Amino acid sequence: MKLNVGIIGATGEVGRMMLKVMEEKNFPVNELRLYASPKSKGKKIIFKNKAYYVENLNEASFSGLDLVFGAVSNELALKYAKAIVNAGAIFIDNSSAFRMNDDVPLVVPEINMKDAFKTSGIIANPNCSTIITLTGINAINKLSKIKSMVVTTFQAVSGAGQYGIMELVDENERITHITKTTGNTNPKIDKKYDVFAHQIASNVIPQISSFLDNGYTKEEMKMQNEGRKILHNDELLVDCTCVRVPVIRSHSISVDLITEDELDIEDIKDKLLVTDGVILCDDPEELEYPMPILTSDQDFVYVGRIRKSLINKNGISLFVSGDQIRKGAATNAIDIAIKYFKI
Amino acid sequence: MKLNVGIIGATGEVGRMMLKVMEEKNFPVNELRLYASPKSKGKKIIFKNKAYYVENLNEASFSGLDLVFGAVSNELALKYAKAIVNAGAIFIDNSSAFRMNDDVPLVVPEINMKDAFKTSGIIANPNCSTIITLTGINAINKLSKIKSMVVTTFQAVSGAGQYGIMELVDENERITHITKTTGNTNPKIDKKYDVFAHQIASNVIPQISSFLDNGYTKEEMKMQNEGRKILHNDELLVDCTCVRVPVIRSHSISVDLITEDELDIEDIKDKLLVTDGVILCDDPEELEYPMPILTSDQDFVYVGRIRKSLINKNGISLFVSGDQIRKGAATNAIDIAIKYFKI
Repeated sequence: MKLNVGIIGATGEVGRMMLKVMEEKNFPVNELRLYASPKSKGKKIIFKNKAYYVENLNEASFSGLDLVFGAVSNELALKYAKAIVNAGAIFIDNSSAFRMNDDVPLVVPEINMKDAFKTSGIIANPNCSTIITLTGINAINKLSKIKSMVVTTFQAVSGAGQYGIMELVDENERITHITKTTGNTNPKIDKKYDVFAHQIASNVIPQISSFLDNGYTKEEMKMQNEGRKILHNDELLVDCTCVRVPVIRSHSISVDLITEDELDIEDIKDKLLVTDGVILCDDPEELEYPMPILTSDQDFVYVGRIRKSLINKNGISLFVSGDQIRKGAATNAIDIAIKYFKI
Repeated sequence: MKLNVGIIGATGEVGRMMLKVMEEKNFPVNELRLYASPKSKGKKIIFKNKAYYVENLNEASFSGLDLVFGAVSNELALKYAKAIVNAGAIFIDNSSAFRMNDDVPLVVPEINMKDAFKTSGIIANPNCSTIITLTGINAINKLSKIKSMVVTTFQAVSGAGQYGIMELVDENERITHITKTTGNTNPKIDKKYDVFAHQIASNVIPQISSFLDNGYTKEEMKMQNEGRKILHNDELLVDCTCVRVPVIRSHSISVDLITEDELDIEDIKDKLLVTDGVILCDDPEELEYPMPILTSDQDFVYVGRIRKSLINKNGISLFVSGDQIRKGAATNAIDIAIKYFKI
């Protein structure tokens, strides 16, 4: 079966990665339509050695498509979702617009693929940090239900798209020059691209997205809200702190969780060894643990630094890294499609 | 009163900062003797507009000194401590060699200065992340005893000294060049200085110091062990994850703690406003929260992102940053001396 596939937001960081992952996985495409903002109209994109030209998006764009991947803002996802579904296509959307809707499955294929088949047209791709964290801890949750998690993220600049990367690279170049020539170890520079609220080079920013009344950011609340829906556990409690770090690719997450029952570390490692989508990377003596330089540009979530909590006998501490553009976005969406259409 | 002061390790990152902080605080020095490794012998250092020459260290170096600051390895601190104390000087040591000894006070001046006066010659300066975290949470501990903390650190490369800075700056320069010229968002490079176990540019490394049998690193265990001693709370429980990040200066710490009683966020903020050594930096709507670029090259610990835990009604989440070379090392040591000698 070959599918007629559309991608809205095809020229962005996630859209381009969707095309790359589809090529790598030899995704069976019949017709391919690529949509982006008017400024990209006519741009040539090569897919499986064939040239495609980026088109303008309108309500009539989706006729005849089996599947549309969304890699656009909430605003655009909301604007076109109905037209996509009305055209008879399945809309696998990476925005957060539909994630918490009761009639929209929110899916990590390794965890809750069954939910996807209940779709009435839209399937939501979870938040990047949520996908990576939940993929990493799912094996533990199967051994004993996770009751709560304290989570701190180390999120890469590419989470903010191509301009996020440009901002870090530009700032790194300038502060490196200042430090090398003046010895100044605390160089402050003017921002050029204005993607982040503050200088990101040689800094960490404990804010991703906007703040809610409870003092958490929207991004931080996704770990609990989306986590509950994906794990089918309405009582899951999560204290999350999301931090942007000067890393180009891959998010890392420090997790301290509590399960219903006491678990054995070796049992957890054994389970992780046979868990889909995960690499057990936990040999500290050999300096092996999850890090962005290991996890970038591949699809597995690395899990390591697994140890017993010193606070709670049912507690486990661990460290997780994964490529948030691939597993945290594009690959997760493509894998949903592969399993949904039984490719 | 002017003191005869020695510094062992005067040319390192912390030793030089001790001299800078002594100048800034107009520390009353009569005689000043600067010691370092043989390769620095004869090196000229200017202090309060006067030239001093670095000397070689030996057992007889300390005669006539009132005070010696230690900014050397555990090995050298252990080697010379006895000679320093026998010479009648107070030894304020930044190494970890004596921190957990029963007869050695471990002191953060804002928290437990009283302990310092029980010294039999040595006063230990705590670990950098421990100083910054405890200074940040001490006001909360005064409102209600802290029972446990889940802590994740974001530690700057200068915690590994001057070569740590050189390693990051060199690597940043090379990966920036690669990314700009090739578009590669996951550049891997050979290491030049070999300070860190892995590439640190565009990466985070969840290992600082060596691993213990319980799966934690020595650095991670300091938060609980030193925390118990400084806070006089042998039951304090801490799950700590220490992570090196590509930041030149200042450590940041994500803390999720539980107190004996339920606290009000506004009471905590009110208390922090009048707490020594702390800046309340908590206005998310104005994009104000602790970050390395704010806290580098000054002495305050910044505390922000203060919010109620979603897991435990007695829980508080917060984010702390501080300059680990100053407050986390040099300034803490100088402040102990200022209060000890009632300067």
